[in-house]
Amino acid sequence: MLVVMKANAEQADVDRVCQAVSDLNLTAHPIPGKSRTAIGITGNVGPVDPSLLSALPGVIEVIRVTRPYKLTGREMQPEDTIIRVGDVRVGGPEIAVIAGPCSVESHEQTVSGARHLREHGAHMLRGGAFKPRTSPYTFQGLGEEGLKILAEAREQTGLPVVSELMDIENIELAERYVDVIQIGARNMQNYPLLRRVGRSSKPVLLKRGLAATLEEFLLAAEYIMAEGNRNVMLCERGIRTFSDYSRFTLDLSVVPELKRISHLPVIVDPSHAAGRRHLVIPLARAAIAAGADGVMVEVHAEPNRARSDGAQALTLDMFSELMEELRIIAPAVRRTASGGANPTA
Amino acid sequence: MLVVMKANAEQADVDRVCQAVSDLNLTAHPIPGKSRTAIGITGNVGPVDPSLLSALPGVIEVIRVTRPYKLTGREMQPEDTIIRVGDVRVGGPEIAVIAGPCSVESHEQTVSGARHLREHGAHMLRGGAFKPRTSPYTFQGLGEEGLKILAEAREQTGLPVVSELMDIENIELAERYVDVIQIGARNMQNYPLLRRVGRSSKPVLLKRGLAATLEEFLLAAEYIMAEGNRNVMLCERGIRTFSDYSRFTLDLSVVPELKRISHLPVIVDPSHAAGRRHLVIPLARAAIAAGADGVMVEVHAEPNRARSDGAQALTLDMFSELMEELRIIAPAVRRTASGGANPTA
Amino acid sequence: MLVVMKANAEQADVDRVCQAVSDLNLTAHPIPGKSRTAIGITGNVGPVDPSLLSALPGVIEVIRVTRPYKLTGREMQPEDTIIRVGDVRVGGPEIAVIAGPCSVESHEQTVSGARHLREHGAHMLRGGAFKPRTSPYTFQGLGEEGLKILAEAREQTGLPVVSELMDIENIELAERYVDVIQIGARNMQNYPLLRRVGRSSKPVLLKRGLAATLEEFLLAAEYIMAEGNRNVMLCERGIRTFSDYSRFTLDLSVVPELKRISHLPVIVDPSHAAGRRHLVIPLARAAIAAGADGVMVEVHAEPNRARSDGAQALTLDMFSELMEELRIIAPAVRRTASGGANPTA
Amino acid sequence: MLVVMKANAEQADVDRVCQAVSDLNLTAHPIPGKSRTAIGITGNVGPVDPSLLSALPGVIEVIRVTRPYKLTGREMQPEDTIIRVGDVRVGGPEIAVIAGPCSVESHEQTVSGARHLREHGAHMLRGGAFKPRTSPYTFQGLGEEGLKILAEAREQTGLPVVSELMDIENIELAERYVDVIQIGARNMQNYPLLRRVGRSSKPVLLKRGLAATLEEFLLAAEYIMAEGNRNVMLCERGIRTFSDYSRFTLDLSVVPELKRISHLPVIVDPSHAAGRRHLVIPLARAAIAAGADGVMVEVHAEPNRARSDGAQALTLDMFSELMEELRIIAPAVRRTASGGANPTA
Repeated sequence: MLVVMKANAEQADVDRVCQAVSDLNLTAHPIPGKSRTAIGITGNVGPVDPSLLSALPGVIEVIRVTRPYKLTGREMQPEDTIIRVGDVRVGGPEIAVIAGPCSVESHEQTVSGARHLREHGAHMLRGGAFKPRTSPYTFQGLGEEGLKILAEAREQTGLPVVSELMDIENIELAERYVDVIQIGARNMQNYPLLRRVGRSSKPVLLKRGLAATLEEFLLAAEYIMAEGNRNVMLCERGIRTFSDYSRFTLDLSVVPELKRISHLPVIVDPSHAAGRRHLVIPLARAAIAAGADGVMVEVHAEPNRARSDGAQALTLDMFSELMEELRIIAPAVRRTASGGANPTA
Repeated sequence: MLVVMKANAEQADVDRVCQAVSDLNLTAHPIPGKSRTAIGITGNVGPVDPSLLSALPGVIEVIRVTRPYKLTGREMQPEDTIIRVGDVRVGGPEIAVIAGPCSVESHEQTVSGARHLREHGAHMLRGGAFKPRTSPYTFQGLGEEGLKILAEAREQTGLPVVSELMDIENIELAERYVDVIQIGARNMQNYPLLRRVGRSSKPVLLKRGLAATLEEFLLAAEYIMAEGNRNVMLCERGIRTFSDYSRFTLDLSVVPELKRISHLPVIVDPSHAAGRRHLVIPLARAAIAAGADGVMVEVHAEPNRARSDGAQALTLDMFSELMEELRIIAPAVRRTASGGANPTA
Repeated sequence: MLVVMKANAEQADVDRVCQAVSDLNLTAHPIPGKSRTAIGITGNVGPVDPSLLSALPGVIEVIRVTRPYKLTGREMQPEDTIIRVGDVRVGGPEIAVIAGPCSVESHEQTVSGARHLREHGAHMLRGGAFKPRTSPYTFQGLGEEGLKILAEAREQTGLPVVSELMDIENIELAERYVDVIQIGARNMQNYPLLRRVGRSSKPVLLKRGLAATLEEFLLAAEYIMAEGNRNVMLCERGIRTFSDYSRFTLDLSVVPELKRISHLPVIVDPSHAAGRRHLVIPLARAAIAAGADGVMVEVHAEPNRARSDGAQALTLDMFSELMEELRIIAPAVRRTASGGANPTA
Repeated sequence: MLVVMKANAEQADVDRVCQAVSDLNLTAHPIPGKSRTAIGITGNVGPVDPSLLSALPGVIEVIRVTRPYKLTGREMQPEDTIIRVGDVRVGGPEIAVIAGPCSVESHEQTVSGARHLREHGAHMLRGGAFKPRTSPYTFQGLGEEGLKILAEAREQTGLPVVSELMDIENIELAERYVDVIQIGARNMQNYPLLRRVGRSSKPVLLKRGLAATLEEFLLAAEYIMAEGNRNVMLCERGIRTFSDYSRFTLDLSVVPELKRISHLPVIVDPSHAAGRRHLVIPLARAAIAAGADGVMVEVHAEPNRARSDGAQALTLDMFSELMEELRIIAPAVRRTASGGANPTA
């Protein structure tokens, strides 16, 4: 931490800050400059609340130097985390493609869709059973019934299943049926829920909150990891900005930045960011080109009949087309995207 | 809802949309224009998913016309909701001042602080017992012990107590000890929690999420009200923007806009928005001048020793000064701010 | 400036940074910490480009400490700047009210409107002759004809005149007719224009860009002041955020923050921020309550017939009502708002 | 345009709106719904100011239906615009790579750098001679001297030259020396400048303002095209959001959206968005994968000695690496990126 003094601060002000630092069992290093003094602080193990110093007379600013995340950072673990889900390795040389409907709606739709996805190269099946909906008056998901359908689709296709958990109450259900527990953007700072999945044996796909800074995102992952669960996938799904032609603004710069400072795998969900189908394929390609470890896309056999978010779902044909394109792009980032039951077909 | 067709859409495209509207048991009203056709839709009771129409050939845009909130809107209830908490009326002619420390830290600090606040005009006591903290490594609140201290402060001063609830698990605790349950900004879209407090008999102070649109904010209140709890106070506490000198950007325009479209009382929390003490008093004055029904401010006897958010806490003297100023401003908005044990002192 | 080294940086990395600092004729102060070293830098008079150091091996971050603005800052001039415009003093004990139509449309409208404004307490008349319009197909202002009308309104009422200048070409025109040159939000970083008005003898009202940080705003004022013109009024008019119910988000926290770090007067324009009439009066009250030195509001005798921005213009009656309310609020911020031809009426 | 009435609006209110519509020489189409009436409006050729209707009694909202841009839109011209600059075709099957230093600093640096860029596949040379800098105290560019150096680099390499124009005064200079005139983000709404380059014979590269909506961006292009210059390249360079780890947030969704609604070529500048070198290559790859017609990147032989923005400049080696990767990606979007003097080398 660095305390910056006002240009006209007196020596007594500087002394007072040094004393306060010392009271916190830390060491103060005054750096007298031409027009003002700054005071470096060392010796802290955990974070120090800057407000304890910022209000002292003569202080103009307190700047934090050490980053508050630990377990998620590359300084702690330099090599990439590779998460194993069934036969899939997320974070390794092959990019991971997670696909499926926004909501699980019926057995038939889900199972036949999953077969198509598997044939064309998907690695995991996504589908919502508990849906966080902005309005209390819209379809909220099939609940346990939806989870059962997902489990059956897995049985039929071998695809591991990703589904969202919205509350602690349903964690046993989730653990029974799914392979990866998804924490949605709206729950990224639901700390009791993060702590609870941190004690689960299932990998967690953590979506970035729609207004979360990079640091807050990593600290949310830190909540999970601090409880013991090291299998966290970070998922960018768009942030909220003034820009109004897409539902959210997909922040693809976050991909290389997360890969630089964290060892965790990074997945991109272009469907929720875009909100409209014609943007999804270009953004999925861009995500892989930016270095993401995988993408998660919504696919629906009949998007116009979907019970939620139909406008952003790819058709089955569009999904096949996307996979073709990803196979071309992957080598540019030293990855493969072979995937699928018959990748060379 | 209004469907706008492309300039070059053919009659068959228009017919197809009209058919789709009709399949949804709604009525289509084509409006042929100079360069394109628009199709008005009537007959819907609940919301219709625009994506069911937006993907049809020839459609350029689907515009929603009816607002999706109901119970929170003035169209449903034209007169102001006034919420009774003990002897306090929130939403009536007297502005409501809620004050207290960020976190409950000790019995002594809380009770003696509450006495001072009451003497100088506060109507309710705030204090956190369960704290949502960005980092898992910082102080997380005293839990039930904190709630007990708040309840004792109420006993000694008569001030009703507001405190945050973070999870369903602790709702019985909250209901036992507090008078108003606060839902924090990070939980504004924690739907299971909203539904649960919607079944509580306690009034709820619902904070706006840091990236919530006006509509999402009202729909979160709608989740609570749809379960039966009509006593919801809406609380603006700053939104996340690019602007980086304050912690959040306090969006005071929301006050007159909410008052116009909703009958619920509107409270402003300038402390969290500002993040720094010297901005809090000007913003609290501005909130009342903008027409808010009350303000919630953090006050601490010794801010530099606070265990959380000390930099934004007012001192006791600053609180007294604020109350003086609010008494001057209130008549400009046809309100009173007498408050306190001896308002005329 | 402070250079933060990576946790695993070697001594050679630290030495290399110290050498680079020394090559820039600055002094390096290494501060070895528990887990990493930071290096304080002193001796710089002007700003140093952080990128010269941030790319060196072992560097994790370069933090700037000294603020880049000088002439606008209170460290340079502690006392408030008071700007004299005719008989008006902006930045002094009386709040300044600038009012008038968005665009000057006709002689009659402008002169009779100005009389009403003066009678009810306005101090200056605003009106656009050159209009920056988002679309090339909308009304672009009357040009010189508009400036002449403003000058005549001044002659008839004694109200000094504020009008926007969009390009260097028209500066002589502006200087001939207006008392305060307005630089609009879209031109806040039009540096050639800023430099040119910096050499004018007329005071400048500088609007904050719609995505300008506080620092960029002050640096824009710095461009003007560095050329010799010290009479700059800073004007907050709303920033662009995700929030979509108002045209822009009025950032009122900027008022106390600007007053703290700068000696320049601060004016608030709630009309452009709000975009809709019913929000303007609450926000104008809030601006004064937050400590602004004045407000600028759009007023039109017949808003529904205005050629631009009619939806945000106050009627003449609303303006009178606003002035009544400001007179109540002003004493809360130790100001007066008597104004007008017959302030006690 | 569609006027939505309040639920409780009376027939007289509806009639009044219809009359007002009729007064504007337009046609009103009332659509009575279950709970409210909406009124469709047809017959307008140019845009109608919604505020003329929104303030009438009983009106809850006025929704604009027709988009205000014309010349830039695909409805006007369905086929892609391909812009010819020397031997380069922007918007055609080959992606365009524009590269060079942020500022032109010296003859030697510019010419030898240009040679390297050409050898490795660049199509055009960029370099700033007039630099818009946030602070008046930093390097502002070499001016005409810089333009001469660029022209000489073109002579030596055959690469057409792109450089920024900041004011009308210097347009003759720009036209004499450069092949493409760049309008920077800060000047995207400098309308006199847009109009002037609209009368130039040189193609224009128009950067999106850092807070510009898609519509404002297209309308800025419309200002240029309305004066007769049809050769406009749209350039995304990052928008301002709350996200603080990159300088701006590169909004790549804009690429497929612009390609859908406009026929103009779309270029992406990842360097200014990222602000830091390690993000530039991933984002440049992503831009091409998203469907951009080209990228513009900053390259410097010795970034640590650059006089501006050194931290975001690629080294010459990094540029070569980027070109390799783009050659792999291009076929995924049915493009080529052969480029360079010896593309197969």
